[in-house]
Amino acid sequence: MADLKNDAITSMDEDFAQWYTDIVKKAELIEYSGIKGCMIIRPFGYAIWEAIQKELDRRFKETGVENVYMPMFIPESLLNKEKDHVEGFAPEVAWVTMGGGETLQERLCVRPTSETLFCDLYSKIVGSYRDLPKVYNQWCSVVRWEKTTRPFLRSMEFLWQEGHTAHATEEEAQERTIQMLNVYADFAEEFLAIPMIKGRKTDKEKFAGANATYTMEALMHDGKALQSGTSHNFGDGFAHAFDIKYTDKNNKLQYVHQTSWGVSTRIIGAIIMVHGDNNGLVLPPMVAPTQVVIVPIRQQAEGVLETAAKIKTSLSDLRVKLDDSDRSPGWKFAEHEMHGVPVRIEIGPKDIQENHAVVARRDTGEKTVVSLDELENYVRELLKTIQKDMLERARKHRDAHTYEATNLEEMTEIAANKPGFIKAMWCGERECEDALKEKVGVTSRCMPFEQEKISENCVCCGKKAKSMVYWGKAY
Amino acid sequence: MADLKNDAITSMDEDFAQWYTDIVKKAELIEYSGIKGCMIIRPFGYAIWEAIQKELDRRFKETGVENVYMPMFIPESLLNKEKDHVEGFAPEVAWVTMGGGETLQERLCVRPTSETLFCDLYSKIVGSYRDLPKVYNQWCSVVRWEKTTRPFLRSMEFLWQEGHTAHATEEEAQERTIQMLNVYADFAEEFLAIPMIKGRKTDKEKFAGANATYTMEALMHDGKALQSGTSHNFGDGFAHAFDIKYTDKNNKLQYVHQTSWGVSTRIIGAIIMVHGDNNGLVLPPMVAPTQVVIVPIRQQAEGVLETAAKIKTSLSDLRVKLDDSDRSPGWKFAEHEMHGVPVRIEIGPKDIQENHAVVARRDTGEKTVVSLDELENYVRELLKTIQKDMLERARKHRDAHTYEATNLEEMTEIAANKPGFIKAMWCGERECEDALKEKVGVTSRCMPFEQEKISENCVCCGKKAKSMVYWGKAY
Repeated sequence: MADLKNDAITSMDEDFAQWYTDIVKKAELIEYSGIKGCMIIRPFGYAIWEAIQKELDRRFKETGVENVYMPMFIPESLLNKEKDHVEGFAPEVAWVTMGGGETLQERLCVRPTSETLFCDLYSKIVGSYRDLPKVYNQWCSVVRWEKTTRPFLRSMEFLWQEGHTAHATEEEAQERTIQMLNVYADFAEEFLAIPMIKGRKTDKEKFAGANATYTMEALMHDGKALQSGTSHNFGDGFAHAFDIKYTDKNNKLQYVHQTSWGVSTRIIGAIIMVHGDNNGLVLPPMVAPTQVVIVPIRQQAEGVLETAAKIKTSLSDLRVKLDDSDRSPGWKFAEHEMHGVPVRIEIGPKDIQENHAVVARRDTGEKTVVSLDELENYVRELLKTIQKDMLERARKHRDAHTYEATNLEEMTEIAANKPGFIKAMWCGERECEDALKEKVGVTSRCMPFEQEKISENCVCCGKKAKSMVYWGKAY
Repeated sequence: MADLKNDAITSMDEDFAQWYTDIVKKAELIEYSGIKGCMIIRPFGYAIWEAIQKELDRRFKETGVENVYMPMFIPESLLNKEKDHVEGFAPEVAWVTMGGGETLQERLCVRPTSETLFCDLYSKIVGSYRDLPKVYNQWCSVVRWEKTTRPFLRSMEFLWQEGHTAHATEEEAQERTIQMLNVYADFAEEFLAIPMIKGRKTDKEKFAGANATYTMEALMHDGKALQSGTSHNFGDGFAHAFDIKYTDKNNKLQYVHQTSWGVSTRIIGAIIMVHGDNNGLVLPPMVAPTQVVIVPIRQQAEGVLETAAKIKTSLSDLRVKLDDSDRSPGWKFAEHEMHGVPVRIEIGPKDIQENHAVVARRDTGEKTVVSLDELENYVRELLKTIQKDMLERARKHRDAHTYEATNLEEMTEIAANKPGFIKAMWCGERECEDALKEKVGVTSRCMPFEQEKISENCVCCGKKAKSMVYWGKAY
């Protein structure tokens, strides 16, 4: 019996949704649990999340963020304090009604997000201008009772970070809101090789309780958009609801201005759907748990494992793995391709004789014969090249799938036949936004910071346009 | 008005419990939340937890541990699968009974610990001897509905790590159980400067569902013991309950053998109560969020801040902070003492003129005048010395508060008058253990690996003794 890995996955062109599900299972990113919508993140999936956490946390701390931990429960009375916020979240929360064998006097909700808890804390610990700003963040899990769920993209419980800040002035809060969106987008481009469109959400799409929500939107391989991180400016709305005041330098009482911002495990879904192919995951080197895998060929032959081990040592500052398991080389190739390992080095007796190794790129499939003397430098450079090329390729794909529409007919035709972003002008009215969803099947992704004038008039009603909007079908 | 910090805390000799509570609040480790027993871990407290996490996680991974994330909810039917386990935990769990606006068909408990979830996972993903061992761990929060709570020591929700492993053989499971206890104890001694007694729990004190529980016990400043980390061998009990089987090399079906082990934020309580003093926290350099604080004296004077900045730069690989806030030096001294910063450097115009600085140790209060030319090396060496001295001091304190008793009268007298560990022989019977609790007020902490023969007979019933036990009053 040949030692072949039975890892065939559905082709992405045939059924993108099934391709996605196949990858998350076959690459051992997740396992389903006994509770619908709750997923188990397996070691390989969690290693990706750990890499994301480490890098984002580093970037946060560079901007002065401090980490904290808040309780996972929110008393119902606290959740109810800010009207818009509770209306947005109450329908999808889980309630703890019993504890320690007794029925609770007040229900506790399992946090769907923690604005109310941070506000409660700030109302206690902020008193003077000297206490500001507060720039807190926590890494935790949150629960939202979703009806339809998909691994990483939409689940009942998911992991994320939520930053919550309090500032003396409106300007400072706005600055922090945009700063964090930029931290997210830079991280996504530089670390995950995913180009982002940054912009502001329409009022319809903004966060429950926010004055303004900013977002970064990525385009998946199938032409659908994924909201990948958001940053909200709350103004002083929560401060009024929770009575968060400070004494300014003139000894006058002022309300604070607040922000919050979050990125979740959802972004692992973006990595899969932006970079993956029909052989499985394709990981950008920076986030890959294993960056280089060495596969010995005829590993029992004299000198093969020794040479492989030497190569490993020469690259030991990278995340490098020598796969000397008793599987066949073909099995190992398929296995590590499924896991998206950026670079594979093949080394066998013949290669050693000729003083070279074969180096394969996961992203392009390209194989190169490289002299053993140059291998170390070659691999280091190749990882940088792959990281750069993957971002470039994703950008090209996005740009090639970004269209412009100046009227409803054009927009309908594009939406029906060409999956991707549609740039079109908008009058700013909710009616047109609703109509586009109903008639064309697209939602507003954002009003990008980089505005263009596609035409003078709203793509829907024809009245004078106020802004250019990215529209699309979204996860 | 003098700029004095109003940080007076209760003296530990007067009221140890109040001293503890004062420290956790005044050192800004925690804030109470609106839910009884749920604490907010503030930036300074969380930074200590992050240091613990980082170091423990590194040590775990060196032994082959892989991190995962499991759902926070456990369906009631799953919790009920292992009889002893559910009996131990069911009384103190929180139940989610409503979600998404509807009453759930099956209650979900918020995890008090995740044995059942890991077992469910292993039953799905373990099939062959090739899949073993599984050495998984997760960092998360858990909930236990405690009646009386104290910050870090006993709270309704707390942070921890829980490792869960599955092995092919009984021997391998036992080896892993002890290995992890050793990882914990080495970490506690080397990183937290807390000496540990390692041993096995009596059947009365073992974990619900375990064959054997191993523990490390530390002695606090007030002579009470704190269970600081446990490691459990489950044998194949859970494997039978959850049907976790694998095919061995001879193609025979076998049950796996399992372990679990955990350390929680409770250990922060140990740091406080082992090292703290009447001026606040005293942190071992390795775990201190700030290792060195530089306090400029007359900082407006020419050259002071420049020299302070130069000193900071020369130590920039350490966690060093230059406090140039507009507070008085006295305020800063008290502030950083409260936070337990191991080393303080004072530098003013006079010092600069004389080419020296004043270096103060937090642990002893000792001040030394050090030439600026030697300062860098001096501080580096001093941090090592402090780390070593703190462990030594804690060990001496523990040894000086460890007593021996050979009969009930002696034991009662010691327990009443000399807070600390009591070493005494035990026959192995539950009746004597219960009697000692009732009559003497002590519980068995552990049967230490390092057994001694204090006498021939049980301290309680006088029958032939089976083992030497550490007894004490415990948190």
